[in-house]
Amino acid sequence: MARENTRAIFLGILTPKKIFGGEKMQRIGKQTIEFTAKPKIESHGAVAGKKEAEGPLSADFDQTFQDTSLQTESWEKAEAQLQKEAVSVALAKGGLKPKDIDFILAGDLLNQCISSTFGLLDYNIPFLGQYGACSTMAQTLFLAAVLVDSGAAHRAAAVTSSHFCSAERQFRTPLEYGAQRTPTAQWTATASGCAIVGRAGRVEIVRGLAGKIVDLGVKDPANMGAAMAPAAADSIYQFLQDTHTAPSDYDCIYTGDLGQVGTDLLHQTLQQNNLDLTSRHQDCGLLLYDRTQQDVHAGGSGCGCSASVLCGHILSRMEAGGLGNILFCATGALMSPTSSQQGESIPGICHVLHLRRS
Amino acid sequence: MARENTRAIFLGILTPKKIFGGEKMQRIGKQTIEFTAKPKIESHGAVAGKKEAEGPLSADFDQTFQDTSLQTESWEKAEAQLQKEAVSVALAKGGLKPKDIDFILAGDLLNQCISSTFGLLDYNIPFLGQYGACSTMAQTLFLAAVLVDSGAAHRAAAVTSSHFCSAERQFRTPLEYGAQRTPTAQWTATASGCAIVGRAGRVEIVRGLAGKIVDLGVKDPANMGAAMAPAAADSIYQFLQDTHTAPSDYDCIYTGDLGQVGTDLLHQTLQQNNLDLTSRHQDCGLLLYDRTQQDVHAGGSGCGCSASVLCGHILSRMEAGGLGNILFCATGALMSPTSSQQGESIPGICHVLHLRRS
Repeated sequence: MARENTRAIFLGILTPKKIFGGEKMQRIGKQTIEFTAKPKIESHGAVAGKKEAEGPLSADFDQTFQDTSLQTESWEKAEAQLQKEAVSVALAKGGLKPKDIDFILAGDLLNQCISSTFGLLDYNIPFLGQYGACSTMAQTLFLAAVLVDSGAAHRAAAVTSSHFCSAERQFRTPLEYGAQRTPTAQWTATASGCAIVGRAGRVEIVRGLAGKIVDLGVKDPANMGAAMAPAAADSIYQFLQDTHTAPSDYDCIYTGDLGQVGTDLLHQTLQQNNLDLTSRHQDCGLLLYDRTQQDVHAGGSGCGCSASVLCGHILSRMEAGGLGNILFCATGALMSPTSSQQGESIPGICHVLHLRRS
Repeated sequence: MARENTRAIFLGILTPKKIFGGEKMQRIGKQTIEFTAKPKIESHGAVAGKKEAEGPLSADFDQTFQDTSLQTESWEKAEAQLQKEAVSVALAKGGLKPKDIDFILAGDLLNQCISSTFGLLDYNIPFLGQYGACSTMAQTLFLAAVLVDSGAAHRAAAVTSSHFCSAERQFRTPLEYGAQRTPTAQWTATASGCAIVGRAGRVEIVRGLAGKIVDLGVKDPANMGAAMAPAAADSIYQFLQDTHTAPSDYDCIYTGDLGQVGTDLLHQTLQQNNLDLTSRHQDCGLLLYDRTQQDVHAGGSGCGCSASVLCGHILSRMEAGGLGNILFCATGALMSPTSSQQGESIPGICHVLHLRRS
């Protein structure tokens, strides 16, 4: 009898918990998936450095740091701290604790993604490290939405970061060299953004597309915009084809960090395919800084650029009612200094998410 | 009328395609998810280098390369080629073409995961780059199973690679230095494995657990086994708790690449928690080489180690009927040379998958 009882209790514990009812996810067209349970962005946080705080989106950040070392001993540790702060803000704004999050998907630009590892270590949340270069915010958000919509998670967090100083010394030269930057170069944002996907919130994730690696042979590491533009064109075109929608069906189509050079190339490429994006398009890399006042050359870039613009600026505008329906298309350049030194080209990638005020 | 027809055709195209019927995924206990549609491993391929071809698993690989440069100009390009070959073999064995795969999840140990980017570029499959160090094979397989089980994908491929020579020069010293290796050091496998998850196949993915980052303060980059063992203990213990199962419920529990040092620590840690793993446990890093004949010190490691052992050795044995029910627990050390130089410890992670012959 006692054994029967124990068995009953065990079976009770073992009964798997069903989180979401309804249908499984569905595919539309060639590459797009439709989230049938429409996961929501339950909370979000964005933090940024001094230069970003001096830019036009200053008021949109939850926290800014005049001391971009964040009182740590190295730029890498500072970047990890940025990611920690972004998650902390997103949790606090949502009235959530780390134990309320079932998965955290995170990435950054540093070798072996150490900002994510060391920034998130203390949260004790199941961790899935992502690498999509500057497209990582869209990639983490896409997979967070898949995990929540599928019933695998109650809540999943998506977070990415970048830091100008850690990126410069890893990808280009240490700051102390004082190297000259070319006009096509972009400024890696010192920033981080975190979005928590769950079942409550005013913004829902409707559809998503994971991009293909697109390589048109661009080899100049000082011109990332040109390297990423073909991928942005490919993914946006395919998403519109798959969903039978036009740019005019969205209040805005945001690309990650093409900057001015990549933006011009994206418009040209899509125009050749009879798609006019110009009246609906904004680029996070062009929104983050005032290029007439701030010396950022072609615009902003880095994993933290589109992350902080999404989690600081875009989602707040959507929640406030200014925007109802957008595409978020973060772009990444999948290269390393080693691959460029070995003569490889710079392949690009772009993932697309359709967000809507519910 | 013509317009009505067009609209009808459009709506027809737009009707989302439902791939899987049945329930959404479910959560068990604290960290484990149950795949309700039980995605299957439809095909798999493993390729390896010269040293691995001289080891005890020689006959299990689909292809081996005596020339570990794979006739390319650099070790990094050779590693990318390994990944390309593993996917090619898995596709061919399954009678599949790249267009049959909806997502490819891939990762490696190189900075910015360039083996994955350049190895998979030509396949033109939607790409989601993963970074979990040597745990990446379990991570990619976990997310591939989520994508298929959720209905987001018909098929998703999981692939990882490592190369002894590219890893040595990036993480330690170039081979030409002839540096002495410590007895606790492990040998990075020159290998790659690819598994294609779909709806047909003899091995099904039953449950999965994404690990937490675990850091007990190990700082020696020449002793990865010790750094990863606590994470393996944490994830295996939690999985067994969540599912109310014991080691004896599985034919074998495979860890990724703890080597001899990490294996001993894992056994000790779990024994302190009243779990005796010894009779059911194998480590991929100890299976890949013959330590009495091959100079690999504490055993094998690298993203390609557990990937090639899973996709060459384990899955073949399961399909042949020798193994019915296993846990695959790949482990990773989430460090970089920079983080170690800056005095950081080496946090570990371990993801668990329950595979069963159906």
